Amino acid sequence: MKSMTGICPPLNPPTRILMGPGPSEIHPSVLAAMAAPTVGHLDPYFLKVMDEVQSMLRHVFQTSNMMTMAISGTGSAGMETCVVNLIEPGDRMIVCAAGVFGGRMADVAGRAGAEVTTLERPFGEVFTAQEIAEAVDRVKPKVVGIVHAETSTGAWQRLEEISKIVHDAGALLLVDCVTSLAGLPVDVDRLQIDAAYSGSQKCIGCPPGLAPVTVGPRALEAMDRRRTKVSSWYLDIGLLRNYWGNNRAYHHTAPINMNYALHQALRLVVEEGLEARYARHLLQHRALRAGLEAMGIQYSVKAEHALPMLNSVLIPAGVDDVLLRGQLLNEFGIEIGGGLGPMKGRTWRIGLMGETAKKSNVLLFLAALEQCLNRQGVRPTAGAGVAAANEIYLQG
Amino acid sequence: MKSMTGICPPLNPPTRILMGPGPSEIHPSVLAAMAAPTVGHLDPYFLKVMDEVQSMLRHVFQTSNMMTMAISGTGSAGMETCVVNLIEPGDRMIVCAAGVFGGRMADVAGRAGAEVTTLERPFGEVFTAQEIAEAVDRVKPKVVGIVHAETSTGAWQRLEEISKIVHDAGALLLVDCVTSLAGLPVDVDRLQIDAAYSGSQKCIGCPPGLAPVTVGPRALEAMDRRRTKVSSWYLDIGLLRNYWGNNRAYHHTAPINMNYALHQALRLVVEEGLEARYARHLLQHRALRAGLEAMGIQYSVKAEHALPMLNSVLIPAGVDDVLLRGQLLNEFGIEIGGGLGPMKGRTWRIGLMGETAKKSNVLLFLAALEQCLNRQGVRPTAGAGVAAANEIYLQG
Repeated sequence: MKSMTGICPPLNPPTRILMGPGPSEIHPSVLAAMAAPTVGHLDPYFLKVMDEVQSMLRHVFQTSNMMTMAISGTGSAGMETCVVNLIEPGDRMIVCAAGVFGGRMADVAGRAGAEVTTLERPFGEVFTAQEIAEAVDRVKPKVVGIVHAETSTGAWQRLEEISKIVHDAGALLLVDCVTSLAGLPVDVDRLQIDAAYSGSQKCIGCPPGLAPVTVGPRALEAMDRRRTKVSSWYLDIGLLRNYWGNNRAYHHTAPINMNYALHQALRLVVEEGLEARYARHLLQHRALRAGLEAMGIQYSVKAEHALPMLNSVLIPAGVDDVLLRGQLLNEFGIEIGGGLGPMKGRTWRIGLMGETAKKSNVLLFLAALEQCLNRQGVRPTAGAGVAAANEIYLQG
Repeated sequence: MKSMTGICPPLNPPTRILMGPGPSEIHPSVLAAMAAPTVGHLDPYFLKVMDEVQSMLRHVFQTSNMMTMAISGTGSAGMETCVVNLIEPGDRMIVCAAGVFGGRMADVAGRAGAEVTTLERPFGEVFTAQEIAEAVDRVKPKVVGIVHAETSTGAWQRLEEISKIVHDAGALLLVDCVTSLAGLPVDVDRLQIDAAYSGSQKCIGCPPGLAPVTVGPRALEAMDRRRTKVSSWYLDIGLLRNYWGNNRAYHHTAPINMNYALHQALRLVVEEGLEARYARHLLQHRALRAGLEAMGIQYSVKAEHALPMLNSVLIPAGVDDVLLRGQLLNEFGIEIGGGLGPMKGRTWRIGLMGETAKKSNVLLFLAALEQCLNRQGVRPTAGAGVAAANEIYLQG
């Protein structure tokens, strides 16, 4: 027998202020819920937890879709769940890609056997209803996939007109709301979104590990008409319906304690109220934005498309990206994200998601950023960032 | 906006003694680790946690495989990971199915496009080297998949001879060790297992949500020779190699706190020592078995194939399965499992996995079972179960 040389020291993670693109900060009551005693996955108590998680997720998605649940994987597993259940080999799908996550959806769809038409836009832009109408008319797709809040760019895609276009053409609308859910209205029923997925670790404020998914009646009908098995057994909604549906038949062993955490995180969302939560995200964004702009830092997306919870800004000239983010992390415990894909080294991504979206984080971040910039010889007007943010808070 | 009618009460799960087929009991230090502060998934601290999890998993698997990691899903996601990466459409695969999980592997392989040959055995039996040799000779498969510890039947499949046969034929050996890992020797390198998967919630003693997977050099070479993309993006080992390998490049957002829990659970495994842990599982099994047999309850598998950690026994004649398990749960807080598939209503599955495998659980279970049987008019010799178990403990 090979033996282990030494035993690893026990865990002792540092306390961070999570202002990156997710995970966001976790409320202590959510961490406490996650450490509650594990019960079996078919225990009557856990079935009640599942019921309540589903009911609260329906509220957050603003839907009455029965098939609303937490997939046992992270946000990307939610994406894969929706795509592989909607797509059979040879089906035509349009994917709108103006960032990493749109690109990922096209990759997932291709692997599922879709004939993918990828509409591309430069990173940071959004799609017009007009160009989607033209593409739908040309391609006649079964599914149109689009990202509501592109985590790689901070761009906010409006969906009202697009939804109408997609449905008028008889297609299904699949929406990535990983970053938007519980921070911006997603309104699945009002917008007639046929399938949507999210992640637990963004504006919901639960650790990563679960993917909220909702599937509407038109999408379920399309799944019922499949001629082939879904390529994934693990993510097969036909099988998951028997577990998350009324039967509660064993499929896989659900991550019990992760669902406890999601339950408590959703309780906090319901307690705060969706409108109040959206308003809080917006206020913190306005304060951060005012502070950053007062320090001469520009957003990488147009103001009318800027997401409140994911602030993508251009790194000022002459600043060493990695050095500055390291200083924020090591001296202040603040994590922000770097740019992804073509934005690597060009942008920072500052998250204001869920618990992270609070005054103390915005002010501390602006103050710390000023010090870090000063260290690299960049000198915005002293105190201007904090002052501008405080001005927003005073106005309310 | 639709509003939520009322808010769900906070979580307050009952304390259970988890003697079912998993999840098993969780050590308080593992629950505490899971509630440690969440850090980012690319935080230097989390990268260190990943390194240590990998190192400890290599020890538990007894392998030097670099590609040893925790997949961000449950045990079934581990199964799917191995199958979809090893199989391309049209590849021939033999799956040995003598229970639900062998059958599941055949389903997963078929969805991945494999030309599947399923060798079947009645529930509770195991495969002989001879019959596998004949099948390998006839089918000439790329992969042979087999279950080491069949959770649905409690049967223990020996692998030594089978591994030699599979490799002599130039095929790859894929092993399901969901229930065996950390409770029985798996010994990946010695047995030349090419790919294996497990679950966090069985003998490792971590809540469900992660799937330890190890992939050896021959399997990686086969993956490198693929002509097609892996059907799953989320489970694509080619992509995961960049995250769990040296690059630590972003793939998906790992379930941070689940990995904390796994880290601490693995620390406890290393601290106890594998040989001591295997011996503990065996001793508890012997005591339980002696107690059950003294009460007239028979195992559903032959003694030489009976797993120590999953005890599948025949429900005595005249006993109402659901009523008895309900009484165990409601009056004693003890969860045991019912039979799966054709064994539903015919067997109970009593788990002795990880933290669950201890004297106090065995004795309490036997005492409680006697009372529950008495309530249904079944009267084994009074106290015989506990007495027989105590006899084993006194012998040591």
